Amino acid sequence: MPPLGSLVIVVTPKGKRRLIRVEEGRDWHSTNGVLSMRDVVATDYGREVRTSQDLPIRLYKPGLYDLVKGVKRQTQIIYPKDIAHICLRLGAGPGRRILEAGSGSGALTLALSWFCGPSGEVHSCESREEFHKLARLNLSWAGIGDNVTLYLCDIAEGFPIQGADALFLDVRTPWEYLSHVPQALRSGAQLGFLLPTVEQVSALLRGIERGPYDDVEVCELLLRRWKPLADRLRPDDRMIAHTGFLVFCRLQECSEEFESLKPAGTRERKQEAARQKRLATVKAERGSVSA
Amino acid sequence: MPPLGSLVIVVTPKGKRRLIRVEEGRDWHSTNGVLSMRDVVATDYGREVRTSQDLPIRLYKPGLYDLVKGVKRQTQIIYPKDIAHICLRLGAGPGRRILEAGSGSGALTLALSWFCGPSGEVHSCESREEFHKLARLNLSWAGIGDNVTLYLCDIAEGFPIQGADALFLDVRTPWEYLSHVPQALRSGAQLGFLLPTVEQVSALLRGIERGPYDDVEVCELLLRRWKPLADRLRPDDRMIAHTGFLVFCRLQECSEEFESLKPAGTRERKQEAARQKRLATVKAERGSVSA
Amino acid sequence: MPPLGSLVIVVTPKGKRRLIRVEEGRDWHSTNGVLSMRDVVATDYGREVRTSQDLPIRLYKPGLYDLVKGVKRQTQIIYPKDIAHICLRLGAGPGRRILEAGSGSGALTLALSWFCGPSGEVHSCESREEFHKLARLNLSWAGIGDNVTLYLCDIAEGFPIQGADALFLDVRTPWEYLSHVPQALRSGAQLGFLLPTVEQVSALLRGIERGPYDDVEVCELLLRRWKPLADRLRPDDRMIAHTGFLVFCRLQECSEEFESLKPAGTRERKQEAARQKRLATVKAERGSVSA
Amino acid sequence: MPPLGSLVIVVTPKGKRRLIRVEEGRDWHSTNGVLSMRDVVATDYGREVRTSQDLPIRLYKPGLYDLVKGVKRQTQIIYPKDIAHICLRLGAGPGRRILEAGSGSGALTLALSWFCGPSGEVHSCESREEFHKLARLNLSWAGIGDNVTLYLCDIAEGFPIQGADALFLDVRTPWEYLSHVPQALRSGAQLGFLLPTVEQVSALLRGIERGPYDDVEVCELLLRRWKPLADRLRPDDRMIAHTGFLVFCRLQECSEEFESLKPAGTRERKQEAARQKRLATVKAERGSVSA
Repeated sequence: MPPLGSLVIVVTPKGKRRLIRVEEGRDWHSTNGVLSMRDVVATDYGREVRTSQDLPIRLYKPGLYDLVKGVKRQTQIIYPKDIAHICLRLGAGPGRRILEAGSGSGALTLALSWFCGPSGEVHSCESREEFHKLARLNLSWAGIGDNVTLYLCDIAEGFPIQGADALFLDVRTPWEYLSHVPQALRSGAQLGFLLPTVEQVSALLRGIERGPYDDVEVCELLLRRWKPLADRLRPDDRMIAHTGFLVFCRLQECSEEFESLKPAGTRERKQEAARQKRLATVKAERGSVSA
Repeated sequence: MPPLGSLVIVVTPKGKRRLIRVEEGRDWHSTNGVLSMRDVVATDYGREVRTSQDLPIRLYKPGLYDLVKGVKRQTQIIYPKDIAHICLRLGAGPGRRILEAGSGSGALTLALSWFCGPSGEVHSCESREEFHKLARLNLSWAGIGDNVTLYLCDIAEGFPIQGADALFLDVRTPWEYLSHVPQALRSGAQLGFLLPTVEQVSALLRGIERGPYDDVEVCELLLRRWKPLADRLRPDDRMIAHTGFLVFCRLQECSEEFESLKPAGTRERKQEAARQKRLATVKAERGSVSA
Repeated sequence: MPPLGSLVIVVTPKGKRRLIRVEEGRDWHSTNGVLSMRDVVATDYGREVRTSQDLPIRLYKPGLYDLVKGVKRQTQIIYPKDIAHICLRLGAGPGRRILEAGSGSGALTLALSWFCGPSGEVHSCESREEFHKLARLNLSWAGIGDNVTLYLCDIAEGFPIQGADALFLDVRTPWEYLSHVPQALRSGAQLGFLLPTVEQVSALLRGIERGPYDDVEVCELLLRRWKPLADRLRPDDRMIAHTGFLVFCRLQECSEEFESLKPAGTRERKQEAARQKRLATVKAERGSVSA
Repeated sequence: MPPLGSLVIVVTPKGKRRLIRVEEGRDWHSTNGVLSMRDVVATDYGREVRTSQDLPIRLYKPGLYDLVKGVKRQTQIIYPKDIAHICLRLGAGPGRRILEAGSGSGALTLALSWFCGPSGEVHSCESREEFHKLARLNLSWAGIGDNVTLYLCDIAEGFPIQGADALFLDVRTPWEYLSHVPQALRSGAQLGFLLPTVEQVSALLRGIERGPYDDVEVCELLLRRWKPLADRLRPDDRMIAHTGFLVFCRLQECSEEFESLKPAGTRERKQEAARQKRLATVKAERGSVSA
């Protein structure tokens, strides 16, 4: 049964669905009568309760998925499909110490906090005060976040912690902060990034290439919903076609010897090598100019 | 640094990658010399270590993602992209009590165990002894699973626990076990299913329709990898196009009144109602026959 | 230059885009002045022409793609992505004789007519008078269709022609008409079908299985648009996720001997064989009842 | 019935499938006996014919789709899914005059030739002699191409014809040839491009932006096959995830006035404007340097 102060999802027969807080004296007014909070706290999740006009209302207990979808947002939030994948790839979980920037609306922060639990830690940096506050508000709204520390800081000056198990960067120019990453993470730690455009992905890959990083993966996740109709089963007419590109890599010592031993046999590698050479030439030229 | 008995990923410059156990006296023989375990335990994750022929080898610490991909399998395992989404949708996490059938190779069990941690519980049922043993073996191999109970049992006779927070069914005919579900779960609990064919999805939807279930969602997740090449960035040529359809719903009291008040205005609903009526007629006829 | 009576696309700087007919005395009224048809017929496609308020307007010549998108519709039309694939798979082209049912809004008819040209023939059947008229109207509007014969007929009584090179069925229950197909097509002809739900695909596959058909393919086409922005290149946020499943096969003599020699080694085939056997048993039982 | 000299597809019960030429004295040797060409020419498409060991063999008539898939290739060919879309978007068809570069293996050339027929024209340029020859060979093999002119030429020096209705560029750096395009096409003509990487798309978009082009569209087509199994219907496990990005635009006079009137209200446009301004500044600076 939903305790006072908790969140609950109420659903009407017409399909209206609201995520509301159970507060004494703040009854919920539907178009078909008032839902008394006294009745709500006496009804189990998964049951029906009735309004003053005898309309049945269903009570769902909000899960992690509902909370993530329910956060107040001022910008694009990270979608649940991406959040789930990020949490798995970063290995969020009890006892783990995860670093994140920026906090944004706090949707990912919330999920990281959920998975890491009381024995874990989530450290989340944000440079814009309005988002810093919004993330705090959303965690507090969800009743989650005892293991979260929110920082109002500019990561251009470095990260506020050391020795994190994993880092997620959801910022516009993540490649600009890569030089601060080694101080903030354990050796071998996992990194993740979310980027909307391909040019950002390219710029990030160029940054990662300079090291000390390895085991790079770029992917995108597509969630295709189907109409849940037995006998007329088919995909939804429309879908979200793009949220962002996910990039993952590891903090890794990269000796020149190891790099030079990588196979250069394939066409891709050869072209890559040529590009690296050009890059080196450019660097050398610039060096001689600035010298 | 990888302790004795732990798993570590070793990576050669040529790109060979192995997930091996660090055991005294069991040195790893690459084509370019022997990697001494004495050297491995003295090297930090994210560093390079050298073989007897002075070849540099990188050491990665296996994360949840690596463990899931590394389980020994006798059948198709659930893919990481689906595991991540299932764990988010079921709200796996510290303190939660998750029920699963069948155990299969234990890949999902492993992830549920990771996320639920010491304060949570995972209960996993399997009717075929070889899979029951395989799941145990894989959990033990990963060094995970203190919070897992594995049951060798046939869920046609009911589930072994009560009051679970969520249930995941990865069996061929999940609709046959729906009648046992209410006893095993808390009211309002979340359910998930994975099914390879559309006919199974239809059959499951017909079962869910009979109640007591609500809030049904059918979806599929597509993971599209990109070649991580700055300047020649593009998707991989091939991808996994199908692993399975995911179905989610909630255990929910469904009064006839609530159901009858659902909007019947759209064409879909009208057709659905006609189908329900036919179904009812068939049931009534069967009833009169069996009477 | 657009001749009188032809169609032209006019585009304003604000991005408004209209497919209009060039008719004397029927000037186009934009929010920024009147576009005189006298000026339009004196301007080449690909040029700009000015309204009475001196606003520049661009003139595009409508191509096949524009015409297909521009047809008046009363139901869902077939999408260009599917039309293109169907025309290639059926081998529409000069000198070919294509049969179609139903005509619907005539979007596919229009494309078939375009590709088949004066030396080809398109025969299109429709049972509902309003669609029959609509298809005629749309062909006439596009100024295409000299090679098209539209039939107002019920294909449950057979097709109106014989010896077609290919057939496309866009009807709700195509499997009900398969028995009439062999009389309408040349031996070896290509067939195509468009179906929105998976249950329809299954029903059609069962019909095709009974022969005389072979070389079956089921697929779906997804068109993902990208924002055409250099430097911020990325996929559109949303896309059409489903229009229909495409099924293709050939009219093919199927001897029992050939069928029995097909490899039965794989699990799929074995299960299939078991199903066929059950089917045969059911048929036999029904036969004995009706005898 | 397949005439001497024509192509035919032979299919064995085991599923072996070959596209062969019917030539006197060149009987086809299967593992189960010899298929006599004398028997083949006496058998209708869509029928079965028997080998010397009495094995039934099916005869399919190759359609456009089979021919496109059957061309000999030395590099990647354009896939049928993309060819179909390109032909629709360019409005290939009887009486149309299409220009193409490069010819590559001639797969698109073949389809353009099919659709344009005797009253149309296809002009295809190729700078590498081996591909020029290969395209000729493939057209001749398919028995198609009376309306095709193949040019061995470098389009860096301009296109060999004028007044084409549409142009398709399948070359590595299409933006380098845009300056020659206006002379080769009718005003208002449609252009198409196929590019494997996003960097190429960006570079092309920057070229198109400089005009005289308009109505730009970037897209990619995904073809997802399903296993054609009634009762176990589901998508194939794997699919082709990437062939190339398609870009389309029109040759269009672009007055500065029209461009300046385009709405600049959205965030995208504003950012774009800023970029253009930077671009202009850079150009101006370079101009002053070179002056």
